[in-house]
Amino acid sequence: MNGNAISPTRKEDYAEWYQQVIRAADLAENSPVRGCMVIKPWGYAIWEQMQAVLDRMIKATGHSNAYFPLFIPKSFLEREAAHVEGFAKECAVVTHSQLVADGQGGLKVASPLEEELIVRPTSETIIGESFSRWIHSYRDLPLLINQWANVVRWEMRTRLFLRTSEFLWQEGHTAHETPEEAREETIRMLEVYQDFAENYMAMPIFCGKKSERERFPGADETLSIEAIMQDGKALQAGTSHFLGQNFSRACNIRFVDRNGQLSYAWTTSWGVSTRLMGALIMAHSDDNGLVLPPRLAPYQIVILPILRANVDPEPVLSYVRALQFRLSGQSFHGQPLRVHVDHRDRRGGEKAWEWIKKGVPMRVEIGLREVENGEACVGLRNCEKKQMFGCEELVAHAAQILEEIQLDLYGTALQFRRKKTHRIRSYKEFEEFFRSDSGFAVTYFSPNGDIEEKIQASLGVTLRCMPLDNGDDRGPCFYDPQRSGEGAIWARAY
Amino acid sequence: MNGNAISPTRKEDYAEWYQQVIRAADLAENSPVRGCMVIKPWGYAIWEQMQAVLDRMIKATGHSNAYFPLFIPKSFLEREAAHVEGFAKECAVVTHSQLVADGQGGLKVASPLEEELIVRPTSETIIGESFSRWIHSYRDLPLLINQWANVVRWEMRTRLFLRTSEFLWQEGHTAHETPEEAREETIRMLEVYQDFAENYMAMPIFCGKKSERERFPGADETLSIEAIMQDGKALQAGTSHFLGQNFSRACNIRFVDRNGQLSYAWTTSWGVSTRLMGALIMAHSDDNGLVLPPRLAPYQIVILPILRANVDPEPVLSYVRALQFRLSGQSFHGQPLRVHVDHRDRRGGEKAWEWIKKGVPMRVEIGLREVENGEACVGLRNCEKKQMFGCEELVAHAAQILEEIQLDLYGTALQFRRKKTHRIRSYKEFEEFFRSDSGFAVTYFSPNGDIEEKIQASLGVTLRCMPLDNGDDRGPCFYDPQRSGEGAIWARAY
Repeated sequence: MNGNAISPTRKEDYAEWYQQVIRAADLAENSPVRGCMVIKPWGYAIWEQMQAVLDRMIKATGHSNAYFPLFIPKSFLEREAAHVEGFAKECAVVTHSQLVADGQGGLKVASPLEEELIVRPTSETIIGESFSRWIHSYRDLPLLINQWANVVRWEMRTRLFLRTSEFLWQEGHTAHETPEEAREETIRMLEVYQDFAENYMAMPIFCGKKSERERFPGADETLSIEAIMQDGKALQAGTSHFLGQNFSRACNIRFVDRNGQLSYAWTTSWGVSTRLMGALIMAHSDDNGLVLPPRLAPYQIVILPILRANVDPEPVLSYVRALQFRLSGQSFHGQPLRVHVDHRDRRGGEKAWEWIKKGVPMRVEIGLREVENGEACVGLRNCEKKQMFGCEELVAHAAQILEEIQLDLYGTALQFRRKKTHRIRSYKEFEEFFRSDSGFAVTYFSPNGDIEEKIQASLGVTLRCMPLDNGDDRGPCFYDPQRSGEGAIWARAY
Repeated sequence: MNGNAISPTRKEDYAEWYQQVIRAADLAENSPVRGCMVIKPWGYAIWEQMQAVLDRMIKATGHSNAYFPLFIPKSFLEREAAHVEGFAKECAVVTHSQLVADGQGGLKVASPLEEELIVRPTSETIIGESFSRWIHSYRDLPLLINQWANVVRWEMRTRLFLRTSEFLWQEGHTAHETPEEAREETIRMLEVYQDFAENYMAMPIFCGKKSERERFPGADETLSIEAIMQDGKALQAGTSHFLGQNFSRACNIRFVDRNGQLSYAWTTSWGVSTRLMGALIMAHSDDNGLVLPPRLAPYQIVILPILRANVDPEPVLSYVRALQFRLSGQSFHGQPLRVHVDHRDRRGGEKAWEWIKKGVPMRVEIGLREVENGEACVGLRNCEKKQMFGCEELVAHAAQILEEIQLDLYGTALQFRRKKTHRIRSYKEFEEFFRSDSGFAVTYFSPNGDIEEKIQASLGVTLRCMPLDNGDDRGPCFYDPQRSGEGAIWARAY
């Protein structure tokens, strides 16, 4: 195959390139149910890697998994005004519990429900109901719960992984004695997401708080991690919400405090979703397809036995078995290397290209020549030059090579973000930048929702976040220099 | 605490005892959404253990996980006549995609969907639609897919874990070139369930095929594993269906076969659900609460430091830390022992009873006396006598002791099943047995749905399965001795 595996290239048509990378790697597809996707085996295997890591991190910070109902009674959603405002307009409503023959060979709905049920768009209200029964005293706090679940938001325009009507996610829900403790929790979980994004997804991110306009419906404060994609657009990859007492009042989550008084708890929620798959794809992939960071690759190494017609395959196959066994015995970040042998009866070149498009970090081709020389022909996904390794050498260094790929992906992404991040002092500069380019604009800004709205309307640019680590660094607002502004990062966003 | 932790006892009121075991172990509770349960952290942790083992087994037999939409268009359900008959009467129907203000401070439904959507009660039709696009040639077969998901069946009478409107499960869906291969798959997965039930859940089961009357709607043949509960009732713990070409015709799953002809694929489906939690609870628990088989216990060992007021806790705590470290270093069936230290500030007796009720196989109490003597005071859940162990001795033997508990639970359950299983030759004997007792009746039976219906109506007893391993063993039908019957096992069932 000459040229690139993916057509169009990123430069030619970024949005279409994204779809084609997904198709070439066989990650997911649209389903006949409007806005709902099918996650195919290779896509789901990557999601399982993400889940496993995140689940370990969430448990290590003291949270327990549990499971709450898929359905939320309409009256529950109505309890928190901002919340219902945010979600009522795009939700799946269950109204009946039966289908019966319509007399014309088809089916019609029957048995209307007494109260309509909403398929959860998020679970604050239904989990809050449980919390109100579980929490009695300050001794029951903090209550630290996480749920892995599917949720539904009836999106009008959908794109695989980035915005789908049904998606998979984890949603953490916690209740605390004091606002300080709840705020700490909100930051702790944002840091977990940051750790995951940077050290597993190899994706540099900005951490910050959202403006009032961009907050989660019902939250007092929303924190987010924001990544940059290769087209210079931002992608919100995870959020963590300080909910104050809004939901504890709405759901009646009260406890007897240390002074014997009945108080409302302080709650948080935080989540990441299959949207991370979209971020992962767009952060690293190239015009040959998906590029996976080794720490999240379902297979870190694929071995391709190269067999010739009418030649005894056994020498190659036994060499491959031994190599797989020895490589699988190597440890990478405390876990055995995941090594797959592709035994399918297809041409070697075809198989190699398939694994390139699927983003596997390391391919190892073994033919008779390699067997005779005790060698292995290695192709690395992040630099498409093949290299010959001695077999012993490869076994000894495979984990280190993968670690270098992991760091290289992060380094390249960080370099790209630096190139696309500009300090901007005035609105004139801001306009010029976004009219001709894309990326992150770092400004001082005096928070004002009306101005945010104007900027979005004219340039399609939104306030991504106000960095948490800015301390007391302030300067004249880029929009209105008479006012004092705090750090604010802007971009066009997914 | 004197007497039993659970009231009523099994003898006094089995059904209520079951609810109380769940409550005492804090496994799950009813939610305000009719028929939907909340799975609480300890219950979910057990389910996670089950999932991890089953997922490994399902992958080891060549299946890949994937994810398909929650919603099924009404027209898809209509494609398979028996299937729609089986599920249409109890399903959650989504009819609208918006809630809007009703002008009276509440919300009303808006934006009716063009086509109603059913929340999946099972996914044959929606997964079949994907299969029809994925499969082109015999080279694409077998296609071996599994999904972990939530499903909804609008049950009228619900019981925690055993029968809930929403439940969690895995559903395998496979397509094959030949009926023989599909039948082999059906049996292979039943054997996986058997292995899991016997060797992990410590629960002996009968494997067999269902009568026509008890088949999955749309299947040509349904196999099941049937366990016995302590009240002598049977519980269907897993099913595996040979679907013939019914769904491939309904969903148009066709492929070009080896002769170049277009053929319909042969499909299977198979699943186990959170119902297994109900089976696990009822198989082993006693009047002190839950009893967990060590291989599925979230914690296999809980260490309880016994501290005294106004005495330096450090000697006990450092001894406990060392013991936890060393026990966690021991391997049980290839995995590190799961050892938890309960540091909560509560009375020792209270904490010990909590872990008894939660079913933890081994408790280890460490106070100053144990520290001084280099000992550990061990309580095993399956025999409530405390034993003193030397600390070294405990570390060296802990895994073996847990293995003995695992085998003891299986042995006890098997003994119980033997006691409750009777060979029955005539309907008179059959009636006498079920009028005065409960358990499994092993008969010869000439398959006949009308007779099954009569027997169910008069005695509440159903044909559980026709054992697979019976070979050619036949005898006179117990109901109509003029006819020749095959082996058939009957019981009252959950």
